[in-house]
Amino acid sequence: MTALLDKKIRQDFSILEQIINDEPLAYLDNAATTQKPKQVLEVLNNYYEKDNANVHRGVHTLAERATAAYEASREKARAFINAKSTKEVLFTRGTTTGLNWVTHFADEVLEEDDEVIISIMEHHSNVVPWQEVCRKNGAHLVYVYLKDGALDMTDLRSKLSSKTKFVSIAHVSNVLGCVNPVKEIAELAHEVGAYMVVDGAQSAPHMTIDVQELDCDFFTLSGHKMLGPTGIGVLYGREEILNQMSPVEFGGEMIDFVHEQKSTWTDLPWKFEAGTPNIAGAIALGAAIDYLTELGMDKVQAHEHELVSYVLPKLQAIDGLTVYGPQEVSKHTGVIAFNLDGLHPHDVATALDYEGVAVRAGHHCAQPLISHLGIHSAARASFYIYNTKEDCDKLVEAIIKTKEFFNGTL
Amino acid sequence: MTALLDKKIRQDFSILEQIINDEPLAYLDNAATTQKPKQVLEVLNNYYEKDNANVHRGVHTLAERATAAYEASREKARAFINAKSTKEVLFTRGTTTGLNWVTHFADEVLEEDDEVIISIMEHHSNVVPWQEVCRKNGAHLVYVYLKDGALDMTDLRSKLSSKTKFVSIAHVSNVLGCVNPVKEIAELAHEVGAYMVVDGAQSAPHMTIDVQELDCDFFTLSGHKMLGPTGIGVLYGREEILNQMSPVEFGGEMIDFVHEQKSTWTDLPWKFEAGTPNIAGAIALGAAIDYLTELGMDKVQAHEHELVSYVLPKLQAIDGLTVYGPQEVSKHTGVIAFNLDGLHPHDVATALDYEGVAVRAGHHCAQPLISHLGIHSAARASFYIYNTKEDCDKLVEAIIKTKEFFNGTL
Repeated sequence: MTALLDKKIRQDFSILEQIINDEPLAYLDNAATTQKPKQVLEVLNNYYEKDNANVHRGVHTLAERATAAYEASREKARAFINAKSTKEVLFTRGTTTGLNWVTHFADEVLEEDDEVIISIMEHHSNVVPWQEVCRKNGAHLVYVYLKDGALDMTDLRSKLSSKTKFVSIAHVSNVLGCVNPVKEIAELAHEVGAYMVVDGAQSAPHMTIDVQELDCDFFTLSGHKMLGPTGIGVLYGREEILNQMSPVEFGGEMIDFVHEQKSTWTDLPWKFEAGTPNIAGAIALGAAIDYLTELGMDKVQAHEHELVSYVLPKLQAIDGLTVYGPQEVSKHTGVIAFNLDGLHPHDVATALDYEGVAVRAGHHCAQPLISHLGIHSAARASFYIYNTKEDCDKLVEAIIKTKEFFNGTL
Repeated sequence: MTALLDKKIRQDFSILEQIINDEPLAYLDNAATTQKPKQVLEVLNNYYEKDNANVHRGVHTLAERATAAYEASREKARAFINAKSTKEVLFTRGTTTGLNWVTHFADEVLEEDDEVIISIMEHHSNVVPWQEVCRKNGAHLVYVYLKDGALDMTDLRSKLSSKTKFVSIAHVSNVLGCVNPVKEIAELAHEVGAYMVVDGAQSAPHMTIDVQELDCDFFTLSGHKMLGPTGIGVLYGREEILNQMSPVEFGGEMIDFVHEQKSTWTDLPWKFEAGTPNIAGAIALGAAIDYLTELGMDKVQAHEHELVSYVLPKLQAIDGLTVYGPQEVSKHTGVIAFNLDGLHPHDVATALDYEGVAVRAGHHCAQPLISHLGIHSAARASFYIYNTKEDCDKLVEAIIKTKEFFNGTL
C-alpha cells in the first residue's frame, strides 16, 4: 500500500510521527517547505559542535574545516544541477534572493521598450522584481497565459520578438502543478537573443536538473524546499554572464582591494557572496543533496508520480471539488491546488488540520494567477518523498468529512 | 583563576572541549564568529523536529507554531536592543545585508555633492556599500581618522556640515577594539540633519544596546557573532524612516496586492522580508538572546573587561609585540589585534594553531584601516563569554613560544 520509495525513509523524519489534533500528522504542505531528515540535522549539529568558524581567510584548524565543508557543499550543489563549474554556483538566501539578483543584472542591461516575458502562473518572487526593474528602465512586462490549465506555448511564441530581453518562467508551477517546457522555451528565447531564467524552486526538489541540458542562463532553487535548512539557496548563472554582472551586495569577502574611495572585486563565485554567508545552512544543504542523490532523483519523481496517480482521480471524483492545472495525471506533479464549491479554502484547510492533514490555503504568492483563474484563493496539497498512499487516503477522507460537516451545518 | 562569569557555562559549549593539534582548544576568534551553546542548538533542533513549517499565511498547526516562534524571536530582538516596536526590527542575513539595505535607502535620498561620513576603521561592509552609493549619486565619502588608536572626534566634528547626509560608524572596531561614542556622534549628526547609522556587529554581542538611548536611525547586528546561527541578523530602523523607505527585495510575503503590472506593499516589518525567511535562524537567534539576557549583558561586558585587564598588559610586555588601538585597558574591548616584529601574522596564526590557540590573521575586512596603520595585516585575538584566564595564558605562552621558535630558526 506504500508508494515507490521505501516507507523506512519516514524513520528519518521524526516530525512526521507527531499527533496533531488527536490524529497522526499527514504533512501535505511540501510546496511551502519540506521536512528535514535526521541526516541533515546531524550534519548541522556536527558543524556547530565540532567545526564552527568563519570561512575563508582563517588559518586556524576550525576555520580550515569550516571553509572546506562550505566549499564542498558548493561542489555538491554544482553536481546536483550539473553546472559546468562551481564559479557558476552562488549561495543565496533562497529563490527570492536569487531572482532579485537576476533582476539586478536585468537592471544593467534592460533598455527602454525592451520586453520581459513571464507567465501568469509565476510566484510573486518571479513577478514583483520584474515589475520593479521594468518600471525603472521603461521596459514592458509581458504575460503568457494558459491553455488547458498549463502554459500556452502558442501564446508564448507569439509574444517573443527581438524586443524580448528576458524570459523568466517557473519550471513547475506552485499552484497548477504543471511542468513547463523550459528547455524548449530556452531555445526559443535564445533564438531572439533573450536571456532565459528558470525559477526552479518547485522543480529542483522533485526531478533531475541539468542546467546545461536545459541551456538556461539562470536557475534558482531554495534549500528549505528540498530537505535543507531555511535561509539558504542557490543561484546558478552562466559564467560569462556572472563575469559581466555587477555584485549585488557589497562588503567583506567579495572584494579584492578596498581603497578609501574605490574597490575591486574578487573572483567568481565569491564576488557575489558579501559578508559571512549562511555557512551552516550551506553545509546542511549539502547533506540534503547527498540524501536526495542517494535516493535518486528519478525515484523521487517516480514516487511522487505514483502518489499523484493514486490521489488525483480520487480528488477529481469528489463532487463539487475543482482541481486547478492539468487534469491528466501524466501532466500533474505533486502540487495539487483545489477548491470545494461553496467553502472558503481557509475553512477547508482549518477543517483538514482538525483531521491532522496539513495543507495550505490562500493565494500561494501567485495573485495574478489566482485572479486569472477567477478565484480568491485555493487550498493546496503538495507531496514529497516521505508521503504515502495512507497520507493520500487521509486527505481524501478528510475532504469528504469536511464537505459533509459544512453541508450539514450550512 | 577564572574570570567573572562562571566557568560552568563552558559546559554549554561542547566544541570548546576539543583537542586541536594535541592541545586543548583556546578559541579566540570570536570577532569572526562565536560558538553556540547547547541551548541554542536545542531550540534549532526542536524547531526542525517538532514545528518546521513555512511562516505566515499557513492555517495548519505546524505553520501556526512556526509563525508564533518566528515572531516571538522578533520581540526578543526588539527587547534586546530596546527598539520601540517590532515594526522597527527587520530580520536580515547579517550585518552586511543590513548595511546594504541602509545604502539602498541612501540611494533614495542622497543628492549630488552630499557627503557621507564614515571612519577609517570601518569594516568593508560599512565602506564598500557607501562607495557604491556615493559614486552612483555623485556624493562624497568622507573619512574620519584616528587619534591615539581611536576615533578622532575633533576630526569628526570638523567634517560634519550641512552637506552631511549620513554618518555611519562602527560601535566597536573589529581591529582596534575601541568603543566609539556613537550616542554623542548621533547627536552631532542630527544637529546637521544627517542620519546616524551604527554598525553594531562587534558591540551588540558584548554590551547592553539601547537604540532609543543611542538615538541612532539604523543599527545592525549579526546573529552568528552573538551565539546565534549563521545566516541571520537584525537591522533596526526608526519606524518613520522604514515607512518612507522602499523595500530592497521583492517577492512573496512583502506584498499586499500583486496585479499584473504593479504591486503594493504590506506593513512593517514584513515589507522588507520578501520570500521565505531564515525561520530556524531567527528562532535560534531568539534562543541566543535568551541565553545572553539570562547571563546579563553587564556581566558579559564585565567578564570581557576582566579578561582584557588580565591579558592586555601581558601582551604589551612582550618585546617586539605591537598592540593596535587604544593602549589603555579601560578603552580596549576584547578584540586585540597585534603584530610581532619581523613575523608575518599568518605565520603567527599558524604557529598559534599548532598550540591549539585559534586566532585570525589578515586584513580583517578593514583594508583602509590596515593601510592607514602602515601594515599589510595583523593577528587578532578576540574574547567572549566562555573564554577564561587560562585561555589568556595559553595565548601569551604560545606567542612567546612562537617568537622563540622563529627567532631560533631565522
